[in-house]
Amino acid sequence: VPLSRTIRCTCINIINQPVNLRSLEKLEIISASQSCPRVEIIATMKKNGEKRCLNPESKAIKNLLKAVSKQRSNRSL
Amino acid sequence: VPLSRTIRCTCINIINQPVNLRSLEKLEIISASQSCPRVEIIATMKKNGEKRCLNPESKAIKNLLKAVSKQRSNRSL
Repeated sequence: VPLSRTIRCTCINIINQPVNLRSLEKLEIISASQSCPRVEIIATMKKNGEKRCLNPESKAIKNLLKAVSKQRSNRSL
Repeated sequence: VPLSRTIRCTCINIINQPVNLRSLEKLEIISASQSCPRVEIIATMKKNGEKRCLNPESKAIKNLLKAVSKQRSNRSL
């Protein structure tokens, strides 16, 4: 049995509920890697700086990314 | 004349050239705010950790975000 690698994912709880683009300060998409085997998407909220992990496979995140790519760059997220 | 706000954007040079999803370690999308009036998209490269600013309105970033939302979560970016 090979030595197991230490898994260090950032996200513990992942939510599926929709997040409004305008309420976001930042959206981070982190690639799967040796330290975490899955893609992680972390949303930082404008209001309180709270970070929420979103499910990359959810309809909500697909809609969010679509909205990002449709926005004009000189507008708020 | 009102006092001008100090502008503190992260990106100085913005590139339009395509970035391959698989070569990315992280993608950050930062909302426009009081400190920077435009949306900023910062890609961190896997190879050397280099950060590149991408143009949110470019075709390249639209394709990249489309690719993110199509990927399976248990794969590399």
